[in-house]
Amino acid sequence: MAVARLYVVGLGPGKPESMTLEARAALDEAELICGYGAYLELIAPRYPDKERCSTPMTQELARCRHALEQAQRGRTVALVCSGDAGVYGMASPVLELLPDYPGVEVEIVAGVTAALSGAAVLGAPLGHDFCVISLSDLLTPWEVIERRLRCAAEGDFAVALYNPSSRRRREQLRRACDILLACRSPETPCGWVRNIGRAGEEKRLLTLGELRDAELDMFTTVFIGASTTQRIGGHLVTPRGYST
Amino acid sequence: MAVARLYVVGLGPGKPESMTLEARAALDEAELICGYGAYLELIAPRYPDKERCSTPMTQELARCRHALEQAQRGRTVALVCSGDAGVYGMASPVLELLPDYPGVEVEIVAGVTAALSGAAVLGAPLGHDFCVISLSDLLTPWEVIERRLRCAAEGDFAVALYNPSSRRRREQLRRACDILLACRSPETPCGWVRNIGRAGEEKRLLTLGELRDAELDMFTTVFIGASTTQRIGGHLVTPRGYST
Repeated sequence: MAVARLYVVGLGPGKPESMTLEARAALDEAELICGYGAYLELIAPRYPDKERCSTPMTQELARCRHALEQAQRGRTVALVCSGDAGVYGMASPVLELLPDYPGVEVEIVAGVTAALSGAAVLGAPLGHDFCVISLSDLLTPWEVIERRLRCAAEGDFAVALYNPSSRRRREQLRRACDILLACRSPETPCGWVRNIGRAGEEKRLLTLGELRDAELDMFTTVFIGASTTQRIGGHLVTPRGYST
Repeated sequence: MAVARLYVVGLGPGKPESMTLEARAALDEAELICGYGAYLELIAPRYPDKERCSTPMTQELARCRHALEQAQRGRTVALVCSGDAGVYGMASPVLELLPDYPGVEVEIVAGVTAALSGAAVLGAPLGHDFCVISLSDLLTPWEVIERRLRCAAEGDFAVALYNPSSRRRREQLRRACDILLACRSPETPCGWVRNIGRAGEEKRLLTLGELRDAELDMFTTVFIGASTTQRIGGHLVTPRGYST
């Protein structure tokens, strides 16, 4: 009997070169590639004749179920998402649903999440201990997010913020900055990167005080420095601790 | 005049397939590849005739300076490290030293850090907000590490621990678990992965209470669940929040 295999593949940020060799091998092997339309287009040029299945952004669970069903029929399936499959990605819902699909083997193929790819654009803001927090309260109560921001501030972590705001949510970034400002100077070096690795990539270094009033969107990843973070030349750097 | 370019390249975990296409392109382009011996051996088969420069594990700053000097002479240099260059990697020290080497352009090439690659082996323990903390007190005062552990516990973050212990440090992991146990149940699902992506890769799922007494080494990455983290089948999963 054919092995029922589903690869859950993180493609990294916006360009095909950001995926790992392993991710590409999984896509090469797959008979069917499922995912959100924009990510499928990213990889389409290499696979003009491969079967693809696109679902809208909001249909995450339907996408997972479809991929699992297809794998259960003995097909080799790749479910793709941007960044890393394990960080706010498709790995969790697939593994939650997996018990409903006996016989399917799932392999998670890690990728470069926006915290890492965005950090590389700015320098090395996550060079020491750090937190990753999403400001989206779509699936998480805002009180939980606020508590995490407070703890990140008190722990002097460098912080990567995902989903800093959207059309629907304009105030979250300002409130997040206010929480961090209770523990950190308004001069704390920060930065953001928009459209990481894509056409129109933008970045900016700024202070925490300035970040508070920045108008960002959901395609932006934000970096907030710890007490040791510095601006060195045009880069944002959190030292690892060597005496240079 | 030749551009003086230094790529700082994260290779991902232990096998060459874990690097990104971009990382491989940087290595292909480089005239000289610098790094710790074990990482150089990893990539050597593809570049039998390329000049390599190996320095011992403890000579990080000397390695950075050598790479910067060589780039300043107009050579295209790649400085490699495992995982992601920006996470406890070579990106920070290189950018700290860069002002001493005018004319050198540095490009950080992101890679898959052990938090992501280890998570993929176990399932999706970092599917929601998380912290990355190193237990090594070589370059960080232990009080700072304890404070971060306390804040990570209070913030209900999933946690990835790097350098959980070494021959010299046997007690750190136990103390870290005790700090987390102040806020979390001893039944909290946890896991560890050793030699990620290498020959002899090992993994184990266990409870926080069991982790406290585990004997691990510096080649192991540890994952501690948040309050929402579950063991589902053989996987460790922190749900993103969809109602499955």
